[in-house]
Amino acid sequence: MQLYDKVLQALKEKKGEWVSGESLSDALAVSRTAIWKQIKTLQAEGYIIDSSPKKGYLLSASPDLLLPLEVGPGLETQVLGQTNYLYYPEVDSTNIRARELAAQGYPEGTVVVAETQTNGRGRRGRNWYSPAQAGIYFSVILRPLVPLRDISKVSLVAGLAVAENIEAQLDLRASIKWPNDVLINNKKVAGILAEAVTDMDSVEYIVLGIGLNINTPIQDFPDEFQARATSAGAECGTSISRVQVFQGMLKYLEYYYFLFKDNKFSQILAKIKDRSIVLGQEVRLDTVNGYLMGQAIDIDDNGCLLVRNQEGIHTIMSGEITILPHLSDR
Amino acid sequence: MQLYDKVLQALKEKKGEWVSGESLSDALAVSRTAIWKQIKTLQAEGYIIDSSPKKGYLLSASPDLLLPLEVGPGLETQVLGQTNYLYYPEVDSTNIRARELAAQGYPEGTVVVAETQTNGRGRRGRNWYSPAQAGIYFSVILRPLVPLRDISKVSLVAGLAVAENIEAQLDLRASIKWPNDVLINNKKVAGILAEAVTDMDSVEYIVLGIGLNINTPIQDFPDEFQARATSAGAECGTSISRVQVFQGMLKYLEYYYFLFKDNKFSQILAKIKDRSIVLGQEVRLDTVNGYLMGQAIDIDDNGCLLVRNQEGIHTIMSGEITILPHLSDR
Repeated sequence: MQLYDKVLQALKEKKGEWVSGESLSDALAVSRTAIWKQIKTLQAEGYIIDSSPKKGYLLSASPDLLLPLEVGPGLETQVLGQTNYLYYPEVDSTNIRARELAAQGYPEGTVVVAETQTNGRGRRGRNWYSPAQAGIYFSVILRPLVPLRDISKVSLVAGLAVAENIEAQLDLRASIKWPNDVLINNKKVAGILAEAVTDMDSVEYIVLGIGLNINTPIQDFPDEFQARATSAGAECGTSISRVQVFQGMLKYLEYYYFLFKDNKFSQILAKIKDRSIVLGQEVRLDTVNGYLMGQAIDIDDNGCLLVRNQEGIHTIMSGEITILPHLSDR
Repeated sequence: MQLYDKVLQALKEKKGEWVSGESLSDALAVSRTAIWKQIKTLQAEGYIIDSSPKKGYLLSASPDLLLPLEVGPGLETQVLGQTNYLYYPEVDSTNIRARELAAQGYPEGTVVVAETQTNGRGRRGRNWYSPAQAGIYFSVILRPLVPLRDISKVSLVAGLAVAENIEAQLDLRASIKWPNDVLINNKKVAGILAEAVTDMDSVEYIVLGIGLNINTPIQDFPDEFQARATSAGAECGTSISRVQVFQGMLKYLEYYYFLFKDNKFSQILAKIKDRSIVLGQEVRLDTVNGYLMGQAIDIDDNGCLLVRNQEGIHTIMSGEITILPHLSDR
């Protein structure tokens, strides 16, 4: 633990009470000047700390930043983010950073989180709009012992975890657009990008990246997303604590990921189907091999979408869906 | 081109003839001492170069090393090994090195080859025995625009290319044990490890590693491989030029890889089935999810093995096969 963290922890333990500079200096075995420097840094980061020559320091408010000492204390996970939690005020992309760390051998459960991404990535090489402190942008390293086709299942698991956490914490109904977009009122609030290193036999690791729009004002979204993106705060009409949502997010993700590892994907699948907005719809599906149109009729045990048209039933592992208007609406 | 390569090229152009130190020094615009140093280096690497104070230098024989200037000139590929050909006398693992290069953006067709590997890797974390200058140990970076399940297809393609090249050059019948082991007389002569970085939608890159036993004496194999490994030379009873086999290997690999990219996997599959030693056999299949026993009845359009037993027909994406004795033989 750095001195910075130690000072913050000491102030947090006495939140709402004055702590003298002398007692801090004694407890941490550093000079009072060293303490003072850390207080300055904390204030610059958004901590509201009153100071008085006689009484010392008083922490009256913490910023809504995803710092280790904000997220860690209330984090009810066993593995995710517990041992390795890497925080960046700014990063090119949490997935890129997590992939580097995974290649270096960082273990399952490693979390990389950033306040903003300069090159946030979505599926199909798209950008993920990541304005500072407005959303939650993070990646997790997972090392399940599964065959390569299970990468898709892990990304479905993530979609369910995002949706359930939003609903539990914010009382907003969240639906899932296969494979893993999470929508509120038919607008996208979260995106998921699962990247993996694999051989033919099994996955070496998966880097699961999630971008969740929390307090982003809708008018701030780039033009091309205006009509189909939203943020949880915009839907609630209030500003939301990101720290709390993130803690819940990691807890739900771990819960369903453990269930998946425990060979209980069928339970997860049932919940995904309940939230699906594509089943029963006429859809256009764009895949790396081309596109097809038909009715989305089911999601199978491998997480593949089944699409029926005149040629028969197609089993689709991944792709991008456009829901077509019903014939009667055209 | 380094001075080393320029000197070698000049000598090769006049192979069997004397080349004066003066003419080399003039042509390459360096001192005669500099030329002399390069000659020493070439001799140390195995080039047989006669020298005479009056007549100069004469290249009479080249070593059977997989150096760029040995493999390059007769290499009849369009892409594989043409622009990026990285040669190492020793490396930990060509796949590890190629993965690093792929992550840095090295293009499709990049070849990494080593005379020996200190940590040669096979499937399922196993070691690949890689004694110096006895085999061909190399990896290729591929960047096909395909969905993730096609990783298996690419590894099947490699097996076919290895088998056909062995047969064409060495007149040995080579068979394929699904998914991609290549056998001569029922003993393994080559192993293939395809590793990929992928997301749910498509493959970012594949690193295809191939280890081919050429001149390894059978008694040199580690004990655990003695009974089931072989080398092409041991089967022929002669010493084989690795350079020529490698040139052919890359040519066959490119041919079938291009066919695969051109959506003609069905043609490849038919040839693989012809060489398969598992179809029709009773097998035990070990996969990451456990094992099953049954009869291997077919390989489907995705490259998956179909295994039939009392429970029905199982579609297996990857695994390790043991051929069981026929009931009548037990």
